[in-house]
This record gives sequence, C-alpha cells and structure tokens, in this order.
Amino acid sequence: MSLPDYYDHAHQLGEALIQRGWMMATAESCTGGLLSAALTDVPGSSQWFDRGFVTYSNDAKAAHLGVATDTLERFGAVSEETAMEMAGGVLSVVARADFAISTTGVAGPGGGSAGKPVGMVCFGFAHRAAGGVSTQAITRVFDGNRRAIREAAVQFALTTALQLILPR
Amino acid sequence: MSLPDYYDHAHQLGEALIQRGWMMATAESCTGGLLSAALTDVPGSSQWFDRGFVTYSNDAKAAHLGVATDTLERFGAVSEETAMEMAGGVLSVVARADFAISTTGVAGPGGGSAGKPVGMVCFGFAHRAAGGVSTQAITRVFDGNRRAIREAAVQFALTTALQLILPR
Repeated sequence: MSLPDYYDHAHQLGEALIQRGWMMATAESCTGGLLSAALTDVPGSSQWFDRGFVTYSNDAKAAHLGVATDTLERFGAVSEETAMEMAGGVLSVVARADFAISTTGVAGPGGGSAGKPVGMVCFGFAHRAAGGVSTQAITRVFDGNRRAIREAAVQFALTTALQLILPR
Repeated sequence: MSLPDYYDHAHQLGEALIQRGWMMATAESCTGGLLSAALTDVPGSSQWFDRGFVTYSNDAKAAHLGVATDTLERFGAVSEETAMEMAGGVLSVVARADFAISTTGVAGPGGGSAGKPVGMVCFGFAHRAAGGVSTQAITRVFDGNRRAIREAAVQFALTTALQLILPR
C-alpha cells in the first residue's frame, strides 16, 4: 500500500535532477512529510534529495527557514508570501541544495475560512539563479478530505517541479 | 489510498500525548518523512506534533540535530548511537518538544552490508526527564522491499512510542 501514485513522478523528478546535477530539499507544512516521503520512496534518492523540514508550527517556520514573523502575521502561515519565504529559506539554509519545494495550506477538516478554504494550498518553488535565488508561488484549491487534499498537493508539487526543471 | 494502516496508531499516540500535555517532534533518515506524514495524517495533529526533520544526508544530521561527526564516523549513520543523538538532538533544538522519535536504517535495495543488512533500522526515543533528557535505542531488521521496510519501520515507531508514553 501507500504512495504508488506518486512514484512515477517522484522518479522522473529524480532523473531530471540528476541530469541537471542538482540536489533538492523540501519545506512542508500541510503535507506534513508526505512530499519528502514520496521523494525518498525512490531507491537512490539520496543522490538528489538532501533533506526536508516539516515545519508544522510557525515557530519551526521561523527558526529553521527564517520565515519572518512579520510575514506570518501580515499574510498568515497559509499564503504565497510564506510559501516563497519557506522555499527561499531552504536554499539560504542548505548550501548544497539547488532546488526547493514548499507547501503550506489548509488540509482540514478544521481551519478553513472564507478567504482560505479547506483544500487551499500555497506552493513555493525556489532555485538558484544568477546573483541569487529565484522563487515563485502557486496556489491551488483541492477537493476531498484531509488525506485526499494532502495527496493532491504532493502530486501537484511533483508534476509542477518536473515542468520547472525539465530542460525547455 | 496511502497510510491507512498507520492511522489508528498515530491517532492513539496523539491522544496519549494530549493526555500528558506533551508535544512531539521527529528526526527521520530512512523513513524519509513517512513517520511525520503518518502523524500529521491525523486531524488536529498540530496540537501535539510540532515539527520534523528529514535529515537524509549526514550533513543534515550534524547541522540540524547536532549529531557529532565523530559518532557518524565511528559508528556510522545507521547505528543506535546516531539514532540516540538524533532523538536527543531534537529535544535540544526544539525547546517546546517533550518527546522525540528518530529513525535511521538501510531501506534498500542498495546499501546493505554483512553487519548492517537491508531492512535494519535503528530507532531512538527521547523524552525529558528530571535533570535532562532520557534516550533509548532499539534496532530491528524488517523484511520486504524498500517500501515494506519503511512502512514496517513507521508502524514499529508508532507502536513503540505508544507503549513508552502510555501511563503504566
């Protein structure tokens, strides 16, 4: 059981990272380790996966990724601003990582609001670019229960990362 | 799909932590986020799960958990010594965590040796005690392929943690 749907995408992402000579790392809030678990399900993933941070609490986001308290207060933990600081923070902290994915969202069943409904997930993607780090955020709202939302978020993170990394 | 077998144990562990008023955190190597994912699969887990470290590389184990380079060199990443330093390291780094679980092992298919076969996993369990931190290590060898080994390791970590935490 578990993780079969992710496997092909995680494997492809690993192949793309090897092709680029890149190491990656993750910063997860709402997916709570499931993204890292999907990546490390691939044999030999230590060649391209270095580490992950499951920063479930705001304290953890600030302490390990350098997310600004001001960002968390002004925009909230579930926001594109926080997602970008999480992904960028990974590259600041992990010198050997070239690419980072972050997730922060409302997996439910509680915690939803009008502006931030259950199922809303903000993703951050960061890579090193000339003169610094390039980050981008994407927000999606997924249907279903807590598990379905988390699984859809992992699937989306993997497929989007693959699109960003594959040579064009 | 995914994680159903863990759910009851993760849920029970959460209930036991709430009863004790404890927060927990994790440090994972071979399980690669799957333990954190199982814990955060439980709705409301932010009440008792604070953060997790997926320290896949040795660099990450040293940087975020304070595992000594000497320990990694003398005993290896897959050792009870490293597992205990990982779990104890979590409590040193995370002031608000009362309990920590660590995993480090050979998930395979590669990486096995005579003394450390594929399927061997060392677990560390740490909790705060009078005057400091109490840590213990347990080693098990699980059968099956990479996924089966990682899942068995998560199951073992959850059930053992539950035994350690439940009031006697």
